[in-house]
Amino acid sequence: MQTVGTKERLVNAGVGLFTRQGLASTGIKQILDEADARFSSLYHYFPGGKDELAAAVIARSGADYQRLVESVWDSQPDAATGVREVFEGAADVLEGTDYADACPIATVALEVASTNEELRLATADVFDAWVDSATARLVVAGASAGDARTLAHAVIALLEGAFMLCRATRSTDPMRDAARVAANLVRQAAPADGARG
Amino acid sequence: MQTVGTKERLVNAGVGLFTRQGLASTGIKQILDEADARFSSLYHYFPGGKDELAAAVIARSGADYQRLVESVWDSQPDAATGVREVFEGAADVLEGTDYADACPIATVALEVASTNEELRLATADVFDAWVDSATARLVVAGASAGDARTLAHAVIALLEGAFMLCRATRSTDPMRDAARVAANLVRQAAPADGARG
Repeated sequence: MQTVGTKERLVNAGVGLFTRQGLASTGIKQILDEADARFSSLYHYFPGGKDELAAAVIARSGADYQRLVESVWDSQPDAATGVREVFEGAADVLEGTDYADACPIATVALEVASTNEELRLATADVFDAWVDSATARLVVAGASAGDARTLAHAVIALLEGAFMLCRATRSTDPMRDAARVAANLVRQAAPADGARG
Repeated sequence: MQTVGTKERLVNAGVGLFTRQGLASTGIKQILDEADARFSSLYHYFPGGKDELAAAVIARSGADYQRLVESVWDSQPDAATGVREVFEGAADVLEGTDYADACPIATVALEVASTNEELRLATADVFDAWVDSATARLVVAGASAGDARTLAHAVIALLEGAFMLCRATRSTDPMRDAARVAANLVRQAAPADGARG
């Protein structure tokens, strides 16, 4: 018995496939097989076909990943520890999934940046939301508004770049190193954070 | 008159196409058209076909990009300024190429990480060489060996992640912010650098 609706199964299949192999390598048939769905279902729920499904996958996986990162960050006593745990958690997941589970939209973002304006905008929306979320948390921690945005860019860039280096070299050293550097950056920008409680 | 040999033209075509659109979106025919080469030439010079050409493209573009970065870095009076100029130069190139020219191997690295072991190893070789190069320069600047490697990971991750954010959002803000952060990290790890001359 399938308890998840067809539309949801199509998006879920896209999330997993795009994370591991990107957009161009993922054929419609592979998505349908993984979702146990029929060709007609795809165009019923996504009349724009693969691109419309891809936009939904990018939005969904971007929002899911943001919630995951926020829950890890917010469960720590201060922002520096929160950021460090996000990176250490990412390293643990890489090790536990044979270096497959990383940023769900990174591969697609690079594939579409110069080739598909609709999907580029979908990835830009995700990254903008992540930068806003990190900026807000860094301001709460005590960083100035300008420093917070600069630092949010740096932290997210560090995470994305470390994912790339780790997946390519099959080592979590870049992510563990990025964890230390990112935590120090946050500590310097918000030295009084964590001393409140 | 074509003054560049066919093998070289095939690699050059691959460098440009992989940089802009990645591996999976690039068909053999597109490479041959761009290189003004025949199908038989591809298999003459690269008996392993597209994958063998792709490995050559990754190695060549990785080495070329490393030389470019090293020449920018080494032309500055100290390591912090060198790193800053690498990032600022990357931002300028993004602006000047409609956000198309970024890291030549990033898209391919993510595409192949979980799907093509031969090509993953080719991207790992490139990143390892970059990390070694940056580590050596940071040691010369005065960082301890351990700090230098951690910092090299962070600087290269920052660069790769900033390329991704910039291309997705069509803004160089993430790269300009990463430039400041990377330069500060280097200055902190090698405070006496540049005070030698």
